[in-house]
Amino acid sequence: MKEAQIQLLETYMSLYINHSVVVEYLDQPESPYVILDVRNAPAAVKKDQIKGAIAIPARNLEQVLDTLNKSKTYVVYDWTGGTILGKQALLILLKHGFDAYELAGALEGWKGMNLPIESLT
Amino acid sequence: MKEAQIQLLETYMSLYINHSVVVEYLDQPESPYVILDVRNAPAAVKKDQIKGAIAIPARNLEQVLDTLNKSKTYVVYDWTGGTILGKQALLILLKHGFDAYELAGALEGWKGMNLPIESLT
Amino acid sequence: MKEAQIQLLETYMSLYINHSVVVEYLDQPESPYVILDVRNAPAAVKKDQIKGAIAIPARNLEQVLDTLNKSKTYVVYDWTGGTILGKQALLILLKHGFDAYELAGALEGWKGMNLPIESLT
Repeated sequence: MKEAQIQLLETYMSLYINHSVVVEYLDQPESPYVILDVRNAPAAVKKDQIKGAIAIPARNLEQVLDTLNKSKTYVVYDWTGGTILGKQALLILLKHGFDAYELAGALEGWKGMNLPIESLT
Repeated sequence: MKEAQIQLLETYMSLYINHSVVVEYLDQPESPYVILDVRNAPAAVKKDQIKGAIAIPARNLEQVLDTLNKSKTYVVYDWTGGTILGKQALLILLKHGFDAYELAGALEGWKGMNLPIESLT
Repeated sequence: MKEAQIQLLETYMSLYINHSVVVEYLDQPESPYVILDVRNAPAAVKKDQIKGAIAIPARNLEQVLDTLNKSKTYVVYDWTGGTILGKQALLILLKHGFDAYELAGALEGWKGMNLPIESLT
Protein backbone atom coordinates (compact mmCIF):
# COMPACT_ATOMS: atom_id res chain seq x y z
CA MET A 1 0.00 0.00 0.00
CA LYS A 2 2.86 2.40 0.80
CA GLU A 3 4.04 2.28 -2.80
CA ALA A 4 0.54 3.10 -4.07
CA GLN A 5 0.31 5.95 -1.55
CA ILE A 6 3.59 7.48 -2.65
CA GLN A 7 2.70 7.12 -6.32
CA LEU A 8 -0.70 8.77 -5.78
CA LEU A 9 0.82 11.63 -3.77
CA GLU A 10 3.61 12.20 -6.30
CA THR A 11 1.17 12.37 -9.20
CA TYR A 12 -1.23 14.52 -7.19
CA MET A 13 1.45 16.99 -6.14
CA SER A 14 2.73 17.23 -9.73
CA LEU A 15 -0.61 18.78 -10.74
CA TYR A 16 0.00 21.87 -8.60
CA ILE A 17 2.09 25.01 -8.84
CA ASN A 18 2.88 27.18 -5.86
CA HIS A 19 1.64 30.78 -5.70
CA SER A 20 5.19 31.97 -4.94
CA VAL A 21 6.36 30.81 -8.39
CA VAL A 22 3.46 32.49 -10.14
CA VAL A 23 3.49 35.79 -8.26
CA GLU A 24 7.12 36.37 -9.20
CA TYR A 25 6.11 36.78 -12.86
CA LEU A 26 2.91 38.75 -12.29
CA ASP A 27 2.74 41.86 -14.51
CA GLN A 28 5.79 40.79 -16.51
CA PRO A 29 5.09 40.88 -20.26
CA GLU A 30 7.52 38.01 -20.85
CA SER A 31 5.95 35.80 -18.17
CA PRO A 32 5.88 32.11 -19.07
CA TYR A 33 2.63 31.81 -17.09
CA VAL A 34 -0.93 32.62 -18.10
CA ILE A 35 -3.40 32.52 -15.22
CA LEU A 36 -6.88 31.24 -16.08
CA ASP A 37 -9.83 31.93 -13.79
CA VAL A 38 -12.03 28.93 -14.57
CA ARG A 39 -14.93 29.73 -12.24
CA ASN A 40 -18.29 29.30 -13.96
CA ALA A 41 -20.00 32.13 -12.03
CA PRO A 42 -20.76 35.51 -13.69
CA ALA A 43 -18.48 38.50 -12.97
CA ALA A 44 -20.98 40.00 -10.51
CA VAL A 45 -20.78 36.90 -8.34
CA LYS A 46 -17.02 36.55 -8.73
CA LYS A 47 -16.49 40.23 -7.74
CA ASP A 48 -12.70 40.03 -8.08
CA GLN A 49 -9.99 37.82 -9.50
CA ILE A 50 -6.23 37.29 -9.44
CA LYS A 51 -4.54 40.30 -11.03
CA GLY A 52 -4.04 39.74 -14.74
CA ALA A 53 -6.02 36.50 -14.88
CA ILE A 54 -8.03 35.64 -17.98
CA ALA A 55 -11.58 34.46 -17.24
CA ILE A 56 -12.42 31.27 -19.13
CA PRO A 57 -15.17 29.33 -17.33
CA ALA A 58 -14.32 25.62 -17.15
CA ARG A 59 -17.51 24.76 -19.03
CA ASN A 60 -16.34 26.85 -22.04
CA LEU A 61 -12.68 25.92 -22.01
CA GLU A 62 -12.82 23.12 -24.56
CA GLN A 63 -14.41 25.49 -27.13
CA VAL A 64 -11.68 28.14 -26.93
CA LEU A 65 -8.56 25.99 -26.83
CA ASP A 66 -7.43 27.28 -30.22
CA THR A 67 -7.08 30.78 -28.75
CA LEU A 68 -4.48 29.52 -26.27
CA ASN A 69 -0.72 29.51 -26.79
CA LYS A 70 1.23 26.24 -26.54
CA SER A 71 4.44 28.10 -25.66
CA LYS A 72 2.89 29.28 -22.37
CA THR A 73 2.26 27.45 -19.11
CA TYR A 74 -1.35 27.71 -17.95
CA VAL A 75 -2.20 28.09 -14.26
CA VAL A 76 -5.87 27.45 -13.49
CA TYR A 77 -7.78 28.28 -10.32
CA ASP A 78 -11.26 27.99 -8.85
CA TRP A 79 -12.73 29.47 -5.62
CA THR A 80 -11.07 27.02 -3.22
CA GLY A 81 -8.87 23.95 -3.27
CA GLY A 82 -11.81 21.73 -2.36
CA THR A 83 -13.72 22.13 -5.62
CA ILE A 84 -13.34 20.28 -8.91
CA LEU A 85 -13.44 22.97 -11.61
CA GLY A 86 -9.68 23.46 -11.45
CA LYS A 87 -9.12 19.75 -12.02
CA GLN A 88 -11.72 19.66 -14.80
CA ALA A 89 -9.92 22.50 -16.59
CA LEU A 90 -6.52 20.98 -15.95
CA LEU A 91 -7.61 17.66 -17.45
CA ILE A 92 -8.81 19.40 -20.62
CA LEU A 93 -5.55 21.32 -20.98
CA LEU A 94 -3.27 18.33 -20.34
CA LYS A 95 -5.24 16.09 -22.71
CA HIS A 96 -4.78 18.68 -25.45
CA GLY A 97 -1.04 18.93 -24.97
CA PHE A 98 -0.79 22.15 -22.98
CA ASP A 99 1.58 22.70 -20.07
CA ALA A 100 -0.74 23.37 -17.18
CA TYR A 101 -1.02 23.34 -13.39
CA GLU A 102 -3.63 24.05 -10.77
CA LEU A 103 -2.79 26.93 -8.44
CA ALA A 104 -2.14 25.50 -4.95
CA GLY A 105 -4.59 27.01 -2.47
CA ALA A 106 -6.80 28.41 -5.25
CA LEU A 107 -8.24 31.94 -5.03
CA GLU A 108 -8.94 31.55 -1.31
CA GLY A 109 -5.27 30.88 -0.56
CA TRP A 110 -4.10 33.70 -2.84
CA LYS A 111 -6.31 36.20 -1.03
CA GLY A 112 -5.34 34.77 2.35
CA MET A 113 -1.74 35.72 1.57
CA ASN A 114 -2.77 39.22 0.40
CA LEU A 115 -1.41 38.68 -3.10
CA PRO A 116 -2.54 41.06 -5.90
CA ILE A 117 -6.16 40.86 -7.03
CA GLU A 118 -8.30 43.12 -9.22
CA SER A 119 -11.96 44.06 -9.05
CA LEU A 120 -14.45 42.76 -11.62
CA THR A 121 -17.28 45.15 -10.82
CA MET B 1 4.29 11.68 -15.74
CA LYS B 2 1.72 13.34 -18.03
CA GLU B 3 0.02 10.00 -18.65
CA ALA B 4 -0.22 9.34 -14.91
CA GLN B 5 -1.59 12.86 -14.37
CA ILE B 6 -4.30 12.41 -16.99
CA GLN B 7 -5.24 8.99 -15.66
CA LEU B 8 -5.50 10.31 -12.09
CA LEU B 9 -7.59 13.32 -13.15
CA GLU B 10 -9.92 11.19 -15.30
CA THR B 11 -10.55 8.73 -12.49
CA TYR B 12 -10.91 11.54 -9.96
CA MET B 13 -13.39 13.49 -12.09
CA SER B 14 -15.43 10.32 -12.73
CA LEU B 15 -16.24 10.20 -9.00
CA TYR B 16 -18.23 13.44 -9.15
CA ILE B 17 -21.63 14.51 -10.37
CA ASN B 18 -22.54 18.11 -11.04
CA HIS B 19 -25.24 19.86 -9.00
CA SER B 20 -26.96 20.94 -12.23
CA VAL B 21 -27.69 17.29 -13.11
CA VAL B 22 -29.04 16.53 -9.67
CA VAL B 23 -31.15 19.65 -9.17
CA GLU B 24 -33.06 18.94 -12.37
CA TYR B 25 -34.63 15.86 -10.76
CA LEU B 26 -35.20 17.34 -7.30
CA ASP B 27 -38.77 16.70 -6.05
CA GLN B 28 -39.53 14.32 -8.94
CA PRO B 29 -40.93 11.01 -7.65
CA GLU B 30 -39.36 9.16 -10.59
CA SER B 31 -35.90 10.66 -10.03
CA PRO B 32 -33.05 8.25 -10.72
CA TYR B 33 -31.07 10.00 -7.98
CA VAL B 34 -31.16 9.56 -4.22
CA ILE B 35 -29.21 12.19 -2.31
CA LEU B 36 -27.45 10.99 0.84
CA ASP B 37 -26.29 13.44 3.49
CA VAL B 38 -23.38 11.50 4.99
CA ARG B 39 -22.30 14.04 7.61
CA ASN B 40 -21.68 12.42 10.99
CA ALA B 41 -22.87 15.43 13.03
CA PRO B 42 -26.27 15.42 14.83
CA ALA B 43 -29.21 17.30 13.25
CA ALA B 44 -28.82 20.24 15.64
CA VAL B 45 -25.29 20.85 14.37
CA LYS B 46 -26.21 20.23 10.75
CA LYS B 47 -29.14 22.71 10.96
CA ASP B 48 -30.19 22.19 7.33
CA GLN B 49 -29.60 19.85 4.41
CA ILE B 50 -30.18 19.56 0.68
CA LYS B 51 -33.92 19.38 0.01
CA GLY B 52 -35.10 15.78 -0.03
CA ALA B 53 -31.77 14.31 1.11
CA ILE B 54 -31.72 11.22 3.29
CA ALA B 55 -29.40 11.48 6.29
CA ILE B 56 -27.16 8.43 6.62
CA PRO B 57 -23.96 9.30 8.51
CA ALA B 58 -20.92 7.81 6.77
CA ARG B 59 -20.02 5.85 9.91
CA ASN B 60 -23.39 4.01 9.75
CA LEU B 61 -23.61 3.51 6.00
CA GLU B 62 -22.17 0.01 5.86
CA GLN B 63 -24.82 -1.22 8.34
CA VAL B 64 -27.82 0.02 6.34
CA LEU B 65 -26.79 -0.92 2.81
CA ASP B 66 -29.63 -3.46 2.55
CA THR B 67 -32.16 -0.63 2.84
CA LEU B 68 -30.78 0.98 -0.34
CA ASN B 69 -32.06 0.38 -3.86
CA LYS B 70 -29.66 -0.86 -6.56
CA SER B 71 -31.84 0.62 -9.32
CA LYS B 72 -31.08 4.15 -8.04
CA THR B 73 -27.99 6.32 -8.37
CA TYR B 74 -26.72 7.59 -5.02
CA VAL B 75 -25.30 11.10 -4.68
CA VAL B 76 -23.40 11.64 -1.43
CA TYR B 77 -22.29 14.91 0.11
CA ASP B 78 -20.45 16.24 3.17
CA TRP B 79 -20.00 19.83 4.45
CA THR B 80 -17.36 20.88 1.91
CA GLY B 81 -15.34 19.44 -0.94
CA GLY B 82 -12.22 19.39 1.21
CA THR B 83 -13.35 16.68 3.61
CA ILE B 84 -13.19 12.90 3.29
CA LEU B 85 -16.59 11.63 4.46
CA GLY B 86 -18.02 11.86 0.95
CA LYS B 87 -15.18 9.72 -0.41
CA GLN B 88 -15.51 7.28 2.49
CA ALA B 89 -19.23 6.82 1.72
CA LEU B 90 -18.60 6.64 -2.01
CA LEU B 91 -16.02 3.88 -1.54
CA ILE B 92 -18.49 1.82 0.52
CA LEU B 93 -21.22 2.22 -2.10
CA LEU B 94 -19.00 1.43 -5.10
CA LYS B 95 -17.47 -1.61 -3.40
CA HIS B 96 -20.96 -2.97 -2.80
CA GLY B 97 -22.04 -2.55 -6.40
CA PHE B 98 -24.10 0.64 -6.16
CA ASP B 99 -24.05 3.41 -8.73
CA ALA B 100 -22.80 6.39 -6.78
CA TYR B 101 -21.16 9.79 -7.09
CA GLU B 102 -19.96 12.54 -4.82
CA LEU B 103 -21.75 15.87 -5.27
CA ALA B 104 -19.29 18.36 -6.78
CA GLY B 105 -18.88 21.34 -4.43
CA ALA B 106 -20.60 19.51 -1.55
CA LEU B 107 -23.17 21.29 0.65
CA GLU B 108 -21.11 24.49 0.66
CA GLY B 109 -21.26 24.77 -3.13
CA TRP B 110 -24.96 23.88 -3.23
CA LYS B 111 -25.78 26.68 -0.79
CA GLY B 112 -23.44 29.08 -2.56
CA MET B 113 -25.60 28.67 -5.66
CA ASN B 114 -28.80 29.14 -3.65
CA LEU B 115 -30.16 25.72 -4.57
CA PRO B 116 -33.05 24.27 -2.48
CA ILE B 117 -32.32 23.28 1.11
CA GLU B 118 -34.56 22.35 4.03
CA SER B 119 -34.28 23.03 7.75
CA LEU B 120 -33.48 20.23 10.22
CA THR B 121 -34.43 22.08 13.38
CA MET C 1 -13.50 2.43 -14.67
CA LYS C 2 -15.16 1.19 -11.46
CA GLU C 3 -12.03 -0.76 -10.53
CA ALA C 4 -9.86 2.33 -11.02
CA GLN C 5 -12.31 4.38 -8.95
CA ILE C 6 -12.23 1.93 -6.06
CA GLN C 7 -8.44 1.66 -6.19
CA LEU C 8 -8.05 5.46 -6.17
CA LEU C 9 -10.50 5.87 -3.28
CA GLU C 10 -8.88 3.09 -1.24
CA THR C 11 -5.41 4.58 -1.65
CA TYR C 12 -6.72 8.09 -1.00
CA MET C 13 -8.58 7.09 2.17
CA SER C 14 -5.51 5.21 3.44
CA LEU C 15 -3.65 8.54 3.64
CA TYR C 16 -5.97 9.88 6.35
CA ILE C 17 -6.44 9.36 10.06
CA ASN C 18 -9.59 10.34 11.90
CA HIS C 19 -9.50 13.02 14.60
CA SER C 20 -11.28 10.63 17.01
CA VAL C 21 -8.26 8.29 16.96
CA VAL C 22 -5.81 11.11 17.55
CA VAL C 23 -7.74 12.98 20.25
CA GLU C 24 -7.88 9.85 22.39
CA TYR C 25 -4.11 10.02 22.90
CA LEU C 26 -3.82 13.78 23.29
CA ASP C 27 -1.76 14.76 26.36
CA GLN C 28 -0.66 11.16 26.96
CA PRO C 29 3.14 10.92 27.32
CA GLU C 30 3.11 7.43 25.81
CA SER C 31 1.06 8.46 22.78
CA PRO C 32 2.06 6.70 19.56
CA TYR C 33 1.10 9.87 17.66
CA VAL C 34 3.04 13.06 17.09
CA ILE C 35 0.98 15.86 15.54
CA LEU C 36 2.82 18.12 13.09
CA ASP C 37 1.43 21.52 12.17
CA VAL C 38 2.93 21.94 8.69
CA ARG C 39 1.50 25.37 7.89
CA ASN C 40 4.09 27.69 6.39
CA ALA C 41 2.66 30.86 7.95
CA PRO C 42 4.35 32.60 10.93
CA ALA C 43 2.90 32.07 14.44
CA ALA C 44 1.20 35.48 14.39
CA VAL C 45 -0.84 34.49 11.35
CA LYS C 46 -1.52 30.99 12.62
CA LYS C 47 -2.75 32.35 16.00
CA ASP C 48 -3.50 28.91 17.42
CA GLN C 49 -2.82 25.24 16.76
CA ILE C 50 -3.92 21.77 17.81
CA LYS C 51 -2.98 21.23 21.43
CA GLY C 52 0.46 19.66 21.71
CA ALA C 53 1.26 19.93 18.01
CA ILE C 54 4.83 20.56 16.89
CA ALA C 55 5.17 23.30 14.28
CA ILE C 56 7.32 22.20 11.35
CA PRO C 57 6.44 24.17 8.20
CA ALA C 58 6.17 21.85 5.18
CA ARG C 59 8.91 23.80 3.39
CA ASN C 60 11.38 22.98 6.20
CA LEU C 61 10.35 19.39 6.86
CA GLU C 62 12.93 17.69 4.67
CA GLN C 63 15.76 19.49 6.54
CA VAL C 64 14.70 18.31 10.01
CA LEU C 65 13.79 14.69 9.33
CA ASP C 66 16.69 13.46 11.47
CA THR C 67 15.06 15.02 14.54
CA LEU C 68 11.97 12.82 14.08
CA ASN C 69 11.41 9.42 15.69
CA LYS C 70 10.73 6.39 13.50
CA SER C 71 8.92 4.61 16.35
CA LYS C 72 6.16 7.27 16.29
CA THR C 73 3.27 7.81 13.88
CA TYR C 74 3.18 11.31 12.46
CA VAL C 75 -0.13 13.12 11.89
CA VAL C 76 0.19 16.22 9.71
CA TYR C 77 -2.33 18.99 9.19
CA ASP C 78 -2.75 22.25 7.28
CA TRP C 79 -5.47 24.94 7.53
CA THR C 80 -8.16 23.02 5.64
CA GLY C 81 -8.63 19.76 3.78
CA GLY C 82 -8.61 21.56 0.46
CA THR C 83 -4.95 22.61 0.52
CA ILE C 84 -1.85 20.68 -0.48
CA LEU C 85 0.70 21.29 2.30
CA GLY C 86 -0.55 18.27 4.25
CA LYS C 87 -0.03 16.03 1.22
CA GLN C 88 3.37 17.59 0.51
CA ALA C 89 4.49 16.83 4.07
CA LEU C 90 2.95 13.36 3.99
CA LEU C 91 4.81 12.51 0.80
CA ILE C 92 8.13 13.54 2.35
CA LEU C 93 7.49 11.45 5.46
CA LEU C 94 6.33 8.33 3.60
CA LYS C 95 9.23 8.51 1.15
CA HIS C 96 11.65 8.57 4.08
CA GLY C 97 10.10 5.54 5.75
CA PHE C 98 8.02 7.21 8.45
CA ASP C 99 4.54 6.09 9.47
CA ALA C 100 2.40 9.11 8.68
CA TYR C 101 -1.14 10.25 7.98
CA GLU C 102 -2.93 13.45 7.14
CA LEU C 103 -5.50 14.53 9.73
CA ALA C 104 -8.97 14.19 8.19
CA GLY C 105 -10.72 17.57 8.16
CA ALA C 106 -7.47 19.42 8.95
CA LEU C 107 -7.39 22.26 11.50
CA GLU C 108 -10.76 23.59 10.29
CA GLY C 109 -12.51 20.30 11.07
CA TRP C 110 -10.73 19.94 14.43
CA LYS C 111 -11.93 23.39 15.51
CA GLY C 112 -15.40 22.74 14.10
CA MET C 113 -15.69 19.85 16.55
CA ASN C 114 -14.39 21.98 19.44
CA LEU C 115 -11.41 19.72 20.06
CA PRO C 116 -8.49 21.07 22.15
CA ILE C 117 -6.37 23.84 20.68
CA GLU C 118 -3.74 26.15 22.17
CA SER C 119 -2.90 29.78 21.51
CA LEU C 120 0.30 30.77 19.69
CA THR C 121 0.25 34.45 20.58
